[in-house]
Amino acid sequence: MTEEAEVGVDPSPTSEPEQQAPHFLQDVIFHGKFKLLKALTPEENTHCQHGLYFEDGERRVDYVLTYPLKKPSGGRSTRQSSHLLIENAVARSLRRGPHSRDEHHRKHQAQKAKDSLSPPSPPGADVELGCPGETLGGQEDHKMFTREKFEAKLRDMGLELEKDEDTKIQGVGFVKIHAPWNVLCREAELMKLKMPTKKMFEIKESSGVMEKINTLVSKVLEPLHPHVEERRHRHIKHLSHTFSREKQHLFDLSDKDYFFDSKTRSSIVFEILKRTKCKAKYNMGITSLLGSGVYTAAYPLHDGDINEESAEPNDRKLLYEEWANYSVFYKYQPIGLVRKYFGEKIGLYFAWLGLYTQMLIPASLVGVIVFLYGCATVDDNIPSMEICHPKNNITMCPLCDRVCSYWKLSTACGTARASHLFDNPATVFFSIFMALWAAMFMEHWKRRQMRLNYEWDLTGFEDEESPSQDHPRAEYEFRVMQKSLSKDQKLQHKTEKLSCRDRLPAYMTNIVMMLLMIGVTFAIVFGVILYRISTKAALHMSSNPITRNHVQLTVKTTAAIINLVVILILDEVYGAVARWLTVLEVPKTDKSFEERLIFKTFILKFVNAFSPIIYIAFFRGRLVGRPGSYLYVFESYRMEECAHGGCLMELCIQLSITMLGKQLIQNNLFEIGVPKLKKLIRYIQSKQVAFQEEERQKKLQRYETDHFLEPFAGLTPEYMEMIIQFGFVTLFVASFPLAPLFALLNNIIEIRLDAKKFVTELRRPVAARAKDIGIWYNILRGVAKVAVIINAFVISFTSDFIPRMVYQYMYSPDGSMHGFVNHTLSYFNVSHFQEGKETLDPLHLGYPVEICRYKDYREPPWSATPYEISKEFWAVLAVRLAFVIVFQNVVMLMSDIVDWLIPDIPKDISLQIHKEKILLIDLFMKEEQVKLQFRENRLSTAAKENCSKSNNNNNSTTAHPRSRLHTDSTKSL
Amino acid sequence: MTEEAEVGVDPSPTSEPEQQAPHFLQDVIFHGKFKLLKALTPEENTHCQHGLYFEDGERRVDYVLTYPLKKPSGGRSTRQSSHLLIENAVARSLRRGPHSRDEHHRKHQAQKAKDSLSPPSPPGADVELGCPGETLGGQEDHKMFTREKFEAKLRDMGLELEKDEDTKIQGVGFVKIHAPWNVLCREAELMKLKMPTKKMFEIKESSGVMEKINTLVSKVLEPLHPHVEERRHRHIKHLSHTFSREKQHLFDLSDKDYFFDSKTRSSIVFEILKRTKCKAKYNMGITSLLGSGVYTAAYPLHDGDINEESAEPNDRKLLYEEWANYSVFYKYQPIGLVRKYFGEKIGLYFAWLGLYTQMLIPASLVGVIVFLYGCATVDDNIPSMEICHPKNNITMCPLCDRVCSYWKLSTACGTARASHLFDNPATVFFSIFMALWAAMFMEHWKRRQMRLNYEWDLTGFEDEESPSQDHPRAEYEFRVMQKSLSKDQKLQHKTEKLSCRDRLPAYMTNIVMMLLMIGVTFAIVFGVILYRISTKAALHMSSNPITRNHVQLTVKTTAAIINLVVILILDEVYGAVARWLTVLEVPKTDKSFEERLIFKTFILKFVNAFSPIIYIAFFRGRLVGRPGSYLYVFESYRMEECAHGGCLMELCIQLSITMLGKQLIQNNLFEIGVPKLKKLIRYIQSKQVAFQEEERQKKLQRYETDHFLEPFAGLTPEYMEMIIQFGFVTLFVASFPLAPLFALLNNIIEIRLDAKKFVTELRRPVAARAKDIGIWYNILRGVAKVAVIINAFVISFTSDFIPRMVYQYMYSPDGSMHGFVNHTLSYFNVSHFQEGKETLDPLHLGYPVEICRYKDYREPPWSATPYEISKEFWAVLAVRLAFVIVFQNVVMLMSDIVDWLIPDIPKDISLQIHKEKILLIDLFMKEEQVKLQFRENRLSTAAKENCSKSNNNNNSTTAHPRSRLHTDSTKSL
Repeated sequence: MTEEAEVGVDPSPTSEPEQQAPHFLQDVIFHGKFKLLKALTPEENTHCQHGLYFEDGERRVDYVLTYPLKKPSGGRSTRQSSHLLIENAVARSLRRGPHSRDEHHRKHQAQKAKDSLSPPSPPGADVELGCPGETLGGQEDHKMFTREKFEAKLRDMGLELEKDEDTKIQGVGFVKIHAPWNVLCREAELMKLKMPTKKMFEIKESSGVMEKINTLVSKVLEPLHPHVEERRHRHIKHLSHTFSREKQHLFDLSDKDYFFDSKTRSSIVFEILKRTKCKAKYNMGITSLLGSGVYTAAYPLHDGDINEESAEPNDRKLLYEEWANYSVFYKYQPIGLVRKYFGEKIGLYFAWLGLYTQMLIPASLVGVIVFLYGCATVDDNIPSMEICHPKNNITMCPLCDRVCSYWKLSTACGTARASHLFDNPATVFFSIFMALWAAMFMEHWKRRQMRLNYEWDLTGFEDEESPSQDHPRAEYEFRVMQKSLSKDQKLQHKTEKLSCRDRLPAYMTNIVMMLLMIGVTFAIVFGVILYRISTKAALHMSSNPITRNHVQLTVKTTAAIINLVVILILDEVYGAVARWLTVLEVPKTDKSFEERLIFKTFILKFVNAFSPIIYIAFFRGRLVGRPGSYLYVFESYRMEECAHGGCLMELCIQLSITMLGKQLIQNNLFEIGVPKLKKLIRYIQSKQVAFQEEERQKKLQRYETDHFLEPFAGLTPEYMEMIIQFGFVTLFVASFPLAPLFALLNNIIEIRLDAKKFVTELRRPVAARAKDIGIWYNILRGVAKVAVIINAFVISFTSDFIPRMVYQYMYSPDGSMHGFVNHTLSYFNVSHFQEGKETLDPLHLGYPVEICRYKDYREPPWSATPYEISKEFWAVLAVRLAFVIVFQNVVMLMSDIVDWLIPDIPKDISLQIHKEKILLIDLFMKEEQVKLQFRENRLSTAAKENCSKSNNNNNSTTAHPRSRLHTDSTKSL
Repeated sequence: MTEEAEVGVDPSPTSEPEQQAPHFLQDVIFHGKFKLLKALTPEENTHCQHGLYFEDGERRVDYVLTYPLKKPSGGRSTRQSSHLLIENAVARSLRRGPHSRDEHHRKHQAQKAKDSLSPPSPPGADVELGCPGETLGGQEDHKMFTREKFEAKLRDMGLELEKDEDTKIQGVGFVKIHAPWNVLCREAELMKLKMPTKKMFEIKESSGVMEKINTLVSKVLEPLHPHVEERRHRHIKHLSHTFSREKQHLFDLSDKDYFFDSKTRSSIVFEILKRTKCKAKYNMGITSLLGSGVYTAAYPLHDGDINEESAEPNDRKLLYEEWANYSVFYKYQPIGLVRKYFGEKIGLYFAWLGLYTQMLIPASLVGVIVFLYGCATVDDNIPSMEICHPKNNITMCPLCDRVCSYWKLSTACGTARASHLFDNPATVFFSIFMALWAAMFMEHWKRRQMRLNYEWDLTGFEDEESPSQDHPRAEYEFRVMQKSLSKDQKLQHKTEKLSCRDRLPAYMTNIVMMLLMIGVTFAIVFGVILYRISTKAALHMSSNPITRNHVQLTVKTTAAIINLVVILILDEVYGAVARWLTVLEVPKTDKSFEERLIFKTFILKFVNAFSPIIYIAFFRGRLVGRPGSYLYVFESYRMEECAHGGCLMELCIQLSITMLGKQLIQNNLFEIGVPKLKKLIRYIQSKQVAFQEEERQKKLQRYETDHFLEPFAGLTPEYMEMIIQFGFVTLFVASFPLAPLFALLNNIIEIRLDAKKFVTELRRPVAARAKDIGIWYNILRGVAKVAVIINAFVISFTSDFIPRMVYQYMYSPDGSMHGFVNHTLSYFNVSHFQEGKETLDPLHLGYPVEICRYKDYREPPWSATPYEISKEFWAVLAVRLAFVIVFQNVVMLMSDIVDWLIPDIPKDISLQIHKEKILLIDLFMKEEQVKLQFRENRLSTAAKENCSKSNNNNNSTTAHPRSRLHTDSTKSL
C-alpha cells in the first residue's frame, strides 16, 4: 500500500522540471516575484492536504526542517531576490547530479522508515559516523555532512525522516520528520505529559437556586459563545494522569493516530530536536545548527487550509471562522481550541487579553460616568464661575517678558471650564476605583489562570519540568567555543561558560547605550519644551491678532503631535536597540534572553512613552519663579507656565493624543493598513502572471506553503504593546478618565488582529507548555503599584483638588468655595519688575496697572517679607503630602485586602481538584484489588495446575499467560 | 522463628498481673503518681527497644492508636489522676473477664497478622460487617464495635495490626500498626514520594580560586558543624525519582526494612488512617474517631531512648546529643537529621529559625555600633549642650496645673543627653539598614528554602499533592451530620456542607469577640495612660521633695511594668480566645482551621503587644494643646506631654521593657523555670517510690513511654512567638537599635529550647511534607512592609530628626545647630493662663515670670495672631510628610530591587537541578536502548527457538523467562 502511494505521488515532482525546462529563466523570474508576493499575502493558501503526510500517505509530518540546497553560490537561499536569478539558473542545471543522488537517498530513507516499525538496525552502525567537518574543504559540504550526522542521530532517537529536495521552491530542501508511536510514548513519559484517561466524571454545577441562575445566565450569554465543539462537553471531564507506558491500560488508545494531537506531536519532536546534539568541535543542537545556517528553518505544519474551497474541516479553519474574524468581535474567544491548536503559552496570552478587555468594560463605563459628571457639574463649579464672571476684574501679570501685557482673568474662562471636566472630586474617586480595579484584574487573572490550568491539565506541572528550556542558545555555545578555541592554544583548561570578564564589554555597552537612549528621550522632551517656549514667544511677537489669539492652541497641538511622532519613531528604534543589546550580551538560555530583552524593551519604551507626560504632570509650571525673578532657560526663555486651572488640562491633552495616536497609527496603519496596501500592489501585479501562478499554488505541498509564512517571533511584542496600554489606562487615569474606553475600543480590534496574524500569517509556533504568563504578571503588578503613587501625586499636585479642599475647610469665611480664586492669587507690585523685563504695552487693558496678580502662595508686597513663600503655601503643601501618604497607603492596603479576600483558586476548581485526586486514588486502589484477586486466582489455578502438570507434562502454550500474570503480581508486591 | 519470639516475650506480661495481684491496690496508687510524674519529667526514658517491634520482633511498629479499655466508669482513662484509684481498682478486678477474652483476641490477631504476608482473606468477608453502633445500648460497646469495624477496614487496606491491652498503664489499650512492604510501595507511589535511586553523581564545587576559598571557609567553620554523619556525603548525591513499583529496578532495595525510614513509614500509615472511613451514619475517619473518643490518641513511635545507658545508637539520641543541647549552642543545626527524624515541616521551622538567628548577627552588630555612635557623639550634640549649659536661662511653663511651677530647661539636661543615644542621624541609617535587612532576610530564606527543597528532593512536589490535607475535620463532619439529621426529618435533600447561614452565628460571635478583645486592649492602654496622668499629678502634689524629684522615673517604670504584666496575661488569654473562636467557626479542613487560628491569634497578639507602643510613638504629647488652653481628659487631667528631647526616649524604654520582659518571662520562666521546678518536685516525691519505680520504667514498652509524652500541638505557637519578636526587631527599630541584639540572645536559647522540647517532651509528630513555611512567609512580608511605614513615621514624627534638619537648612543663621532649642520653643504670656489653672507657686524659681516657654511652633503673644500655629510648624510638617513619602518609597523600591537582584534559586542549585534532569533522561534513554536490544535478542532467539521447537517440543521450563521478556518489551512499545 505504501509502495503504491509513493508511486502515485512521485511522478509529478520529477516530471515537472522536465516539462518546464525550456522556459526556466522565465520560471525563475516568476519565482522571485512569487516569493515576494507570498510573503506579503500569506492568507490565501491552497489546497494541499496531502503535504501533511509522508509520501506513503500514512505517517504524519510532525515537523519540518529546511536547508539550503547545495549550489556553487552557497549562502542563504531561502530569501533570494530576483538579482540572484542567473546564479539560480546555473544552480538548477547543475543540480541534476546531486539531485539524482538525493532521489536515491530518499527512496532508501523511505524504505528505512518503513522498516522502523520493526526494530531499527543496531545503533552501533550509525554512531560511528563522526562529523568530519573541518577536514573537507567546502563549507557547503561541511554543512551537508553535519546535516547527515544530525539526521542519523535523529534516527537513532527513533524519529523517521523523509527528504524532499525536489520542491517548487528552488534552493530549499525539506526534511519531514515523523514521530512514531513508541517515540511519542517515550517522550510523553519523559515530559510528564498529563493525558486524559478513560475514566470520566461529571462536573456538578452548584445546586438549587444558583444552578437556575447559572442556566439562565448561560442561556442569555449563549449567542456570545463561539460555535465550537468543546462547549458541548463541558459538564464531563476526563480524569487525567501523567502518561506512562506502564499505565497504558488507563488511557483510551483506540485511535493511536489521534491520541496525541498535532500540537503535542510537534512539541515532542521539537523536544527531541533540542536534546539531540551533534558533536563537531562543540555540541550542536538544533539551535546551533539553525544559527550556523546548516538548517534554515524549523517549524511544525499547520493543520490545513483556511480556504473555503477545501472541504475537510480542520482546527485551523475553525479558528479562522470562529475566532480570527472581525465579525465575531462581540463573542468570547474559543480559548480551549486556541490552546489545542497553538499550545498553552499562546492560549494564555489570548485568555489574558480577553480578560483584560472584559475587565475594561466596567472601567470604561465608570470612566464615562465620571466624565459625564464633570460635564454636568461644570456650570455649578464656583471657581470657574468666579473666573468667568465679567464683574470679576482681576488683572493678571504678563505671561511673557516685554511683548506680553497684563490680561484679565476672565479671558481664561474657557480653559477653566474645560479643566473642570477632568479636575473634579469624581476623578479622585475614579483613581481609587482604578487602583482597586487593577487589583481586581490581577486577582481575576490569577483565578482565570488557575481555572485554565485545571482545564488544561497543567496542575502539578512545573515550568522548570522541561529541561529543554535550560538549553544554551546557539550564540552562547558559539561564543563558548570561540573562547575555548582561543584558550586552547594557551592552556589546557576547558572553559564551559562565559565568565564575567568575557561579558564585561557587552555589559558596559549595555549600560552606556541604555543611559544614552534614556538621555536621548529626555533631550527630545527638553527639545519639545524649548520648541514650545520659543514658538510661543515668537508667535506672541507676531503682529497678526488672530495668530496671537490662537497661540495657546497652536503651540499645544503642534508640540503634542511632535511628541507623538517622536514617540512612534523612537518606539521602533528602541525595540531594535534593545534586541541588538541583548544579542550583544549573549545570554545563556532562551529564557534568559527573553527576560533581558523584555527588561530593556520595557524600560526604554516606558521612558519613551511616559517621559513627556511625567514632565507635564509634575514639572511644568513648578519651576517658573515669580514675577520680578522669573527662571530663565538659556538666559532668555522664561520657563513655561500652565494655563489657569492647573496643568491637568494639558496633561489630559497630551495623554489623549499620545494614547490615541499610538493606537491608531500603530494598530490601524501599521497592522491593518500596510497589509491592505500590499494586497493592492499584489492585485495589480498578479494580472500579469495570473493563471500560471494559481496553478502552481494549488500544487504546493503543505510544508511549502508554510515555508512562505513569517516565522513566529515570540509573544513579547504583543504583550509589550498591551503593557504600555495598561500603563496609559492606570498610571495617569486621574487626569484622563476616558483612557479605559479608548483602550477597550482598541482591544476589541486588537484581539481579532492578533488572532488573524497567528492563524494566517505566521508559521505554526511550537506549542509551549506554560502555567502562567511569567514575567508579565510581575510587570503588570509593578505598573499597578507605580500607578497608585503616580495617581496620588497627580491628584495632590497636578490637580487643584487639595488647594480647594484646604481653602474650603481652613480659610473660607463661609465654608464655601467663594473667594477661592482670589485666595490662590498673590499680589505683585509692577514697579518691582526687573529692568528690561517689564511689558512694552502697560496700557493694553486701557488703564494703568499698579498691582497685578499671579498664581502662587506668596506674601504680598506690603508684608514684612515681600514675595516670600507664605504660610498658606506650607499648609497646602503639608496637606498635599499628607494626602499622598494617606492615598498611597490606603489604596495599597485596599488592594492587599482585595488580593487577600479573593482566593487565588476558585472554589469550584479546588473542589474538583480534590475530587479528582480522590477518584484517582479510588481508581488505583480498585486496580490493586483486581491485581490481588488475579494473584489469588493464579495461586489457586497454579495449585490445580500443579496437579495437572504432574499428569501431562507438555503445556508450553499455556505457560505464557500464566507467567505474565506472575510478573504482574510480583510487581504489585 | 516468629513463634519462638512470641513465646519468649509473652510470659512476662501475662505472668505479671498474677505476680502482683496481692498488692494491686498499692500498685494502683503507685500508678496514679507515676503517671503524673511521667507527664512532668518525660526526658528520662528507659530502655525499651523491644517495644519498637511487634511481638514477633520483626515487624516494626509504625504507628500506635490508643483507646480506653472498657470498664464500668467509662470516659477518659488516659489521664486519670490519683482520686480515681478506687474506681480503677474495681475496674482491674472486673477486667479479669474481658481480659482473658482480650488475651485470646490478641493471640488471634497475632496469628492473623502473621498470615498477612500471604494474601489476606478475601475482602468480602470483612466488608459485610457493618457498624451496628446505634442498635447496641452501651456507649462503650458501640465504641468497641466502631473500633473493630475501623480496624477491619485498616486490615483491608493491607495494614497489619497487633493489640496490646495488657499494658502497665491501666485503662489504655494499644493498637500497634505495621505497614508491610507492599503497602508502603503502593502508598509511596500514590503519594508520589521521591526516593533516591541507585544512580549517584558528584556535586562539583566551583572551580579554581573559589574552590580554595570554599575549602578554607569550611575548614574554619568545621568546629561549628555538628558531628552528624550526613556531612561526610555532601559531595555525592543520589539521583531521585518518584517511587514507582514499575521502576523498582532503579532503586536500591537491598534492605527493604530501611528503604523507607521510620518517618516515611509513619506518615504513610497516617495517610492510610486518614483516608480510611468507617461508615456509621456519617463517614468517620481517624480524626472523627479521635474526636468522638473511640480512640484516645494516635502517634508514631520515637526511634529509641536518649538515655546514655542504652547502647544502640539512634537518630533521636544523636539529635539529643548534637542538637537539643545547650552546650552546642554555637554550632549549626543538623537540619538534615532533623528533617530525617521529624519530617520537612518541622525541619523547615528550625531551618528558618536558624537562618533568622544567623541574620540577626549582622543586624545586632550594626545596632550596637549605632548605639555606640550615639554614646560617642553625645558630648558633641549641640542641642543637648545648649540645654545643659548653665548659662542657658530658659524658663519653661509648668508641666501641670496649679501644683507645678515654672522650671528651668537646664534641669532636663539628663533626658536630653539620653535622648541623643537613640535619636541621632545614625538611627535613620539604621532603620533603612533594617528595612533592607528584612528584605535580604526574606530573599535569603527563599534561597535557603529552595536549597533545602532540592536537598530534600521536594522539587516537583506540590503542597496540594497529598489529598489528605483536604480531608474535613472531625468537628466539621459532626456538624454536617447534625445538620443533615435535623434536616432529614423535614426534607430528603442531603446536605453535604455547611452553608453561610449555618455559620452566621459563629461569624458574628467572632467579629464581636474580636472587636471586644481589641477594645479591651485599647481600654487597658487608656487605663495605663490615666494611671500615669493621675499618679503624676498625685506625686507632684506630695510634699516630699525626693518623691517629687523621682516622679518621672517612678511613673514611667511602674506604667511600663503594668503594661508588661497586662500584655503577658492578655497574651495567654488571647491565645485561648482565638482557639475558642476558631473552634466555634467549625472550619472544614485542618489547613483552614490553622489559617483562621493564625489570623486571629496574630491580630490579637499584635494589637496586644504593640498598641501601648504605638500610642507612645504617635499619639503621646501630640494632643496636649497649649498653655492657656490645654486639653483635658475627664475635665481635670491634662493630657501627658513627653519629656524634653522627644518621646523617642520613652518609646525606647517601653520597647525595651516589653521586649525583654516578654522574652525573659515567657521563655525563661515559663519554658525553662517551670520544668525545672517540676523536676524538683519529682525528685522529692521519687524518694518514696524510688526502686520499684525504676524497675517498672525499664520494663515499659516504647509505645507506653511515648504515651506519657505531650501530644504535638503544631508549630503555630513557635512561629507566632518568633513573628512577634520579628515585629519588635523591625517595626520600631528606629527608636531602639539594640532590639536585634536582644532578639539574637533570646533566639540562641530558643533554638535549643524548642529542640529539647521536640526531642524529649513531645510525642513524635507525624512527618508532614512541606515546601515552604506557608502563611508565615506572607505574614513576615507584611510585617516587613508595615515596618517601613512605621519607621518612616517614627523618624519623621517621633524623633527630632526633621525639625533639626529644617532648622539647620532653612532657619539657622550660620548653618549650624546653634539656636535650635530656642527655635523650637514658643513664647507664652503667663497672664493668659485660664483662671484657676495658673501655678500656685509663681516665685518657685526665685524671680517673677512674665513669659514662659513651651515646646511647639506657635506665634508669640505679641504677633497679630497670638498662639496661632506658625509658618514654621507647617514647613516642618511638610518636610516631615515629604520625608515619610520619600523614605517609604525609596526603601520599598530598594527592597524590591534586592528582591529582584537576588535570584530566588541559588545558581548552583539551579545548575544541579538541570544536571539531574539531564542525567535522568540519559538514564531512561539508556534503559530504552537496553530494552530494544533485549527485544532484538529475543527476536533472534525466538527465531532460533522456533527452529529448535520444531525439533523438541517439551520446553515448559524455558518458556517462563522468555515470556517475561516478552511482556517487558511489549510494554516498551
